[in-house]
Amino acid sequence: MKKLIKNGTIVTAADTFSADLLIENGIISAIGTNLPAAGAEIINAEGRYVFPGGIDPHTHLDMPFCGTVTKDDFETGTIAAAFGGTTTIIDFCLTAKGEPLKTAIQTWHKKSRDKAVIDYGFHLMIGEINEKVLNELPQIIEKEGITSFKVFMAYKNVFQADDETLFRTLLAAKELGALVMVHAENGDVIDFLTKKALKEGKTEPIYHALTRPPEVEGEATGRAAQLAGLADSQLYVVHVSCADAVEKISEARAKGFDIWGETCPQYLVLDESYLEKPDFEGAKYVWSPPLREKWNQEVLWNALKTGQLQTIGSDQCSFDFKGQKDLGRDDFTKIPNGGPTIEDRFSILFSEGVKKGRIDLNQFVDITSTRAAKLFGLYPKKGTISVGSDADIVIFDPEMERTLSAETHNMAVDYNAFEGMKVRGEPVSVLVRGEFVIRDKKFVGSPGSGKYLKRAKYKQNTSIDQNETLSI
Amino acid sequence: MKKLIKNGTIVTAADTFSADLLIENGIISAIGTNLPAAGAEIINAEGRYVFPGGIDPHTHLDMPFCGTVTKDDFETGTIAAAFGGTTTIIDFCLTAKGEPLKTAIQTWHKKSRDKAVIDYGFHLMIGEINEKVLNELPQIIEKEGITSFKVFMAYKNVFQADDETLFRTLLAAKELGALVMVHAENGDVIDFLTKKALKEGKTEPIYHALTRPPEVEGEATGRAAQLAGLADSQLYVVHVSCADAVEKISEARAKGFDIWGETCPQYLVLDESYLEKPDFEGAKYVWSPPLREKWNQEVLWNALKTGQLQTIGSDQCSFDFKGQKDLGRDDFTKIPNGGPTIEDRFSILFSEGVKKGRIDLNQFVDITSTRAAKLFGLYPKKGTISVGSDADIVIFDPEMERTLSAETHNMAVDYNAFEGMKVRGEPVSVLVRGEFVIRDKKFVGSPGSGKYLKRAKYKQNTSIDQNETLSI
Amino acid sequence: MKKLIKNGTIVTAADTFSADLLIENGIISAIGTNLPAAGAEIINAEGRYVFPGGIDPHTHLDMPFCGTVTKDDFETGTIAAAFGGTTTIIDFCLTAKGEPLKTAIQTWHKKSRDKAVIDYGFHLMIGEINEKVLNELPQIIEKEGITSFKVFMAYKNVFQADDETLFRTLLAAKELGALVMVHAENGDVIDFLTKKALKEGKTEPIYHALTRPPEVEGEATGRAAQLAGLADSQLYVVHVSCADAVEKISEARAKGFDIWGETCPQYLVLDESYLEKPDFEGAKYVWSPPLREKWNQEVLWNALKTGQLQTIGSDQCSFDFKGQKDLGRDDFTKIPNGGPTIEDRFSILFSEGVKKGRIDLNQFVDITSTRAAKLFGLYPKKGTISVGSDADIVIFDPEMERTLSAETHNMAVDYNAFEGMKVRGEPVSVLVRGEFVIRDKKFVGSPGSGKYLKRAKYKQNTSIDQNETLSI
Amino acid sequence: MKKLIKNGTIVTAADTFSADLLIENGIISAIGTNLPAAGAEIINAEGRYVFPGGIDPHTHLDMPFCGTVTKDDFETGTIAAAFGGTTTIIDFCLTAKGEPLKTAIQTWHKKSRDKAVIDYGFHLMIGEINEKVLNELPQIIEKEGITSFKVFMAYKNVFQADDETLFRTLLAAKELGALVMVHAENGDVIDFLTKKALKEGKTEPIYHALTRPPEVEGEATGRAAQLAGLADSQLYVVHVSCADAVEKISEARAKGFDIWGETCPQYLVLDESYLEKPDFEGAKYVWSPPLREKWNQEVLWNALKTGQLQTIGSDQCSFDFKGQKDLGRDDFTKIPNGGPTIEDRFSILFSEGVKKGRIDLNQFVDITSTRAAKLFGLYPKKGTISVGSDADIVIFDPEMERTLSAETHNMAVDYNAFEGMKVRGEPVSVLVRGEFVIRDKKFVGSPGSGKYLKRAKYKQNTSIDQNETLSI
Repeated sequence: MKKLIKNGTIVTAADTFSADLLIENGIISAIGTNLPAAGAEIINAEGRYVFPGGIDPHTHLDMPFCGTVTKDDFETGTIAAAFGGTTTIIDFCLTAKGEPLKTAIQTWHKKSRDKAVIDYGFHLMIGEINEKVLNELPQIIEKEGITSFKVFMAYKNVFQADDETLFRTLLAAKELGALVMVHAENGDVIDFLTKKALKEGKTEPIYHALTRPPEVEGEATGRAAQLAGLADSQLYVVHVSCADAVEKISEARAKGFDIWGETCPQYLVLDESYLEKPDFEGAKYVWSPPLREKWNQEVLWNALKTGQLQTIGSDQCSFDFKGQKDLGRDDFTKIPNGGPTIEDRFSILFSEGVKKGRIDLNQFVDITSTRAAKLFGLYPKKGTISVGSDADIVIFDPEMERTLSAETHNMAVDYNAFEGMKVRGEPVSVLVRGEFVIRDKKFVGSPGSGKYLKRAKYKQNTSIDQNETLSI
Repeated sequence: MKKLIKNGTIVTAADTFSADLLIENGIISAIGTNLPAAGAEIINAEGRYVFPGGIDPHTHLDMPFCGTVTKDDFETGTIAAAFGGTTTIIDFCLTAKGEPLKTAIQTWHKKSRDKAVIDYGFHLMIGEINEKVLNELPQIIEKEGITSFKVFMAYKNVFQADDETLFRTLLAAKELGALVMVHAENGDVIDFLTKKALKEGKTEPIYHALTRPPEVEGEATGRAAQLAGLADSQLYVVHVSCADAVEKISEARAKGFDIWGETCPQYLVLDESYLEKPDFEGAKYVWSPPLREKWNQEVLWNALKTGQLQTIGSDQCSFDFKGQKDLGRDDFTKIPNGGPTIEDRFSILFSEGVKKGRIDLNQFVDITSTRAAKLFGLYPKKGTISVGSDADIVIFDPEMERTLSAETHNMAVDYNAFEGMKVRGEPVSVLVRGEFVIRDKKFVGSPGSGKYLKRAKYKQNTSIDQNETLSI
Repeated sequence: MKKLIKNGTIVTAADTFSADLLIENGIISAIGTNLPAAGAEIINAEGRYVFPGGIDPHTHLDMPFCGTVTKDDFETGTIAAAFGGTTTIIDFCLTAKGEPLKTAIQTWHKKSRDKAVIDYGFHLMIGEINEKVLNELPQIIEKEGITSFKVFMAYKNVFQADDETLFRTLLAAKELGALVMVHAENGDVIDFLTKKALKEGKTEPIYHALTRPPEVEGEATGRAAQLAGLADSQLYVVHVSCADAVEKISEARAKGFDIWGETCPQYLVLDESYLEKPDFEGAKYVWSPPLREKWNQEVLWNALKTGQLQTIGSDQCSFDFKGQKDLGRDDFTKIPNGGPTIEDRFSILFSEGVKKGRIDLNQFVDITSTRAAKLFGLYPKKGTISVGSDADIVIFDPEMERTLSAETHNMAVDYNAFEGMKVRGEPVSVLVRGEFVIRDKKFVGSPGSGKYLKRAKYKQNTSIDQNETLSI
Repeated sequence: MKKLIKNGTIVTAADTFSADLLIENGIISAIGTNLPAAGAEIINAEGRYVFPGGIDPHTHLDMPFCGTVTKDDFETGTIAAAFGGTTTIIDFCLTAKGEPLKTAIQTWHKKSRDKAVIDYGFHLMIGEINEKVLNELPQIIEKEGITSFKVFMAYKNVFQADDETLFRTLLAAKELGALVMVHAENGDVIDFLTKKALKEGKTEPIYHALTRPPEVEGEATGRAAQLAGLADSQLYVVHVSCADAVEKISEARAKGFDIWGETCPQYLVLDESYLEKPDFEGAKYVWSPPLREKWNQEVLWNALKTGQLQTIGSDQCSFDFKGQKDLGRDDFTKIPNGGPTIEDRFSILFSEGVKKGRIDLNQFVDITSTRAAKLFGLYPKKGTISVGSDADIVIFDPEMERTLSAETHNMAVDYNAFEGMKVRGEPVSVLVRGEFVIRDKKFVGSPGSGKYLKRAKYKQNTSIDQNETLSI
């Protein structure tokens, strides 16, 4: 089966050019003018961008948390992702201390296998490091293709790991070829401040933000960076929300440390004042790290522009306002943290970033897709439009306007965090491995068609050694 | 006329993939597998990289300086450039105070027109700003396509401009859509220190370095950056040689200023100790800024890796050791500044950068070609391998070894600044607009075949507005 | 003649203690409890601080500027200073290019000799460096005891010196034992911006501030610091007004450079918005550097507290609102720069600094007196209360409240820059060399009683060599 | 009983002057020329400095550690301190989790009461924060006058507290008026690195340094500073050893945080290479933090000079080489950490600091005495020479030369960490509250004569409120 996408403007992390694109067997086989159309279905992309499908490196689907479970599972979540231009997600597989890592991975396979409509991989949470864990890791990398580990510096007595665990994970990752991801907030301080706030009767959503101020994120980011530098390992800081953290990442990079930073759409366009919305509506905006004072937004945009931050994850972690978020009506610590963002990540970055001149079109592709593919061992099958890559493609209308709203969104939750926000630029059709999942803004895919992705080791496919042998 | 480059590994600033490449009428028309070969000359690139031709944004060919003239002119210089994988240069057109800018440009056209074997453009030196100059600039941009201006903060009483001139040039450039380039060294201090050294009988080449210490480059870089930020304009710092200057550029970028930095091969692999070579041989290593203490090299490499510096220029400015460099045998200030670097820029960056793991393959392409094309208004015709671009191509053997030497180089000078240095990776064949200039390591081009390039305004072809209309 | 000040709380730059203080022949001869009162006039200082007299290292009395002359001369100016707790000033002796330095010094002696009621010294402006100047400097240091040189980086075509002059002054100062003072603003940029503003019809006082933004002060401060570091000389940055400049000074000090910074009362308590006062009243607040956005104030206070800035000068430079300031009614560039601050420097620092907990009492003494005495070669005769020092003393009531106003001030000008500001803490009596100049808030001194002070070389009296021989 | 010290050069943290000094009842009653000598013992201090007695804010006498006990107790330790010019120490009272704080304090009183020959106070270690501890703290401050708490971020499973404990201690200290002291090294990382080193057979002393690199000190210092800033509390970082930590302290101070830093003589003059001495001699140089690469020394000196570090503690913690240090002959982790430094703190700072021009004479007094007195609630009774202060005095010969050696020192240990080092400047006589403890270099004091010092709350005696009422 062939498909020929004609007359579009193809955009990669480096280039923007007008050409046709030929797909054979789900793979991009040629890019050019006057490509032979014989036997191919013709898709007209005139006036549209042809982007590589988005890669969302940070999702939490069907995840138990705060005594409830995230609303979107691998079916609703990946359908929404597809609508939003995302063709691959990497979800976090949570582990429990004492339990084999393999058990957790099996659980995550079960959650996703028959449901996902786009391709997906897993990161693995590391909550403890001991001989058993160290013995299990090599096969998880080799057999499962899970090449990124997540360590939490916050959520005391739940997910939080101590510095020894973080440091040893960094050392193990270096040896094994994995990338360490870190949730960087000082959990000890947060734990104390939240208890103190509650004791003082401060129970409203805004206290979620006030009990985890930017200093605790800056501190933990700096600490993780120092440990990574000392371990001579690689680090990826998830959901960077504020100037304090950006500064620490930049300092570490200037010292030559191998450190990367991700931000999220919510930190780029929302701010702390949202937590003060009346009638408990602030609960909709409870993320960790929390939304920050508005001036941080330009710092984050500039960091994306200058390459001090490199990716954008949605941190999708959705809960209904009614029945879930309102578990915390009398106690902000019981509000499940997180929000529905998987669908609008791509459009928000385009509309607020490219259209407003903060980043250019190629940076947009790099940030939403290519860089994540390279960092997480998916490249060159995923993350770009080049010959030999999977035909994961977004046909995008840069002028179409849309108002984000729970009434029209495709996520399973009862509110939209960006309700009422107007964006310009929207995915029209989305293909995964050459097959339409979204066609002319309608879902045409099928649950279970998404494939589990075994990922290459850190920098294996983009490394020098590889280059030397010309194999890619 | 068609050409089909088969079996190579194509590399862009974002991607690395195996595919064939079809050239029609000097333009890349298709990239793919199984492209129709009918009527095309087949070029086998198996085991080789197919790179976009290098763009050297910093050359001085046939330039009068220090009472002599650079040895390489537009013929020998561009032939050497082509051997080294460079298919476009941008040379500096020097102006004289009081003289119409147009006169200088005509002189530069005369120097280059019948000689260049690769394509070329001009930057324009601005030595003064007054009504006459301001009136002339718009047509120079529109008619000549010269969209970058060079201001010298050093060479007192020769090229040096004062801060008002720099500031006004930044303002004019912003209004007109040009990029301001700056030679950032404090000329006042250098002038005094050199006179003082001579008075004290310090005449050897090493005093060239000691009288222009890194502090004067750091200071001037910081000053230029501040003025650019204040003017809300765009700045490109040429030949960054040291940590002091890198730091200032990083600081400015973190503030959101639109500032770019270029380094040169000599600063990446040579160091200050070379100026102390006996028998006046140190004179071969007299550049401005001078070579620095060796530890600065890793700072420069890291800045390229993290994107704090973005390009590499050769600063080609060649003089024979005998008859030219030795004008300064008794007085280092009379040693013509500069060296022969146009030929080895590409190979040194590949061998020392990619092969040693300091930068990756896509960064190599970005640094040697794509970024310069984008900054200087040549993109997308130049600077990449994508459909619709000029077929400026380097077929590169990543394993071939070579020892740099005056005995084998193609520049017109009697010494090689990197004499004896072994590099791995070498251009085998080079095409400009689809025609071979170098074929299997032999020159097959012809003087005068290089085309003068009118360049687009700063960010015009990569700007948001452009993106919005999809024209590229 | 003896005087015994009893029951006061003596404060030095290090200590605070209750003791009596005996003065003999204008010199402090003993400090203690139960000192013998025989033959001494008893002065009761119960409930009061006994401070060393203030040293104002930055005044412009009887100075021609902008086509007019500062309103306060050495008589009215020093009387006002005395009321404000200042017992020594160092005034700037302006020079003219081509004219012997000596001529300027003689002019300044003539202005001051029969008028000053407190002691005084001179700084010498250096506008050019050449053989003649270099030959004259040693005797000026030795014979005149002028051991500090002022270089202007602003006031283009008036006072502005180029970088070579600054650099050579730094080198000369190092050799001769003088301290270089610098007015750090980029005059080239200011000159252009002011002309541009005028051309655009922007003539109101606020444009004075907008045409000399903090960036030009930050830039010039950084530049001066770099040159001082390179020269391995000593630098004193006058009238630091903003965070940009503080940052540069701190950076330089962290590198080990010998750099000091002074701020002024106006930058600590007034801000840019004052320049927008209606009816041309903004003209009263025209200083160079200009008043800044309010947030800079806390940065300056913190810099005083942590020792990144060390002194406070008044930069007294007073002009009547009517007849002088209003020369610039139609053109802000014709507003004479400066204001009347000599009288309130001490009280403002006490009230806003000590009383509000931003600095402690000993820091207050260091900042207003001791540090300037040490930096400018007046210590230990001036700047402290210790045995053997001149009895320059302020008896200060820390609770007395006062409202600053032109109606009550002692300066010769028709407005007060701090009009209406309430301060707590006020000098009650002031002695110079043991004689009352102010007694119970009344002037009791006499013009001409102030002595010209020959100052020691930089660090001569506080230097290591001195220490070694125990002479002090 | 009166004493009159004649003809000396008195030095305070601000002043240097020649005067006589009268002592009555152990208190300084007058300073002056021609003071009445009637009934006073005359002490001639001609050619000598008269300094306030040194205050050593960091000692560990008679302390159990690593399964042994420090060799010097309160008798030998304070005698040695007195020989070295120190008249007050503040020792660390160690606590045990679960045990009342009071018990620990009683133990420390027992250790010291009949032994100390100079005055002393205690800091209190906080290893845990809970209701019991919080309830006990107020009385410890009020009744015991212990107003400084020490928290360890290192020594995992021994002294190490977690971040919550540190943060809560900072909050409690703020409320109660105490100063929090922190041992800033990341204990988790150190613990892992030491175990790893041992497992790899790396048992020599040098691995002590290699397993606690400067990054772990920099990280922990930054973390503590961030927590202190967030708590709006006061922090004192003990034994700062390296540039990484200095940088963090400077950053925090620039942000306006109330943070102080102490270094130790060993970090100023010894370096990491000492740990590589053969025959296990490296063990003598095992401190935590460890000695650093030599270049850090100039950073520390510059920080003292510019006020980024403010005090010097000895961190006296002495163990015999034979019988104690050699417990770790086969395992560096068993080498008791620490060394004998109480005696030479003062002389080393004078000789290397003042004599070599790195700090001035008044800074010397501030660093060795005054600042510690002010920070730890001892001022104005201790820490200065002013009327009303305790007559704790050092008569110091600035030219006397001495070679530091175990053969001549007065500490109870069998080696000297500075063996063979020549110093210039030495205490000749030392008085505590007016009584000689050392006279002409002979010990003339008696065990038990040292007084326990109840200390004032943080900034109580130097605070603004105090100033306002003039009581001091």
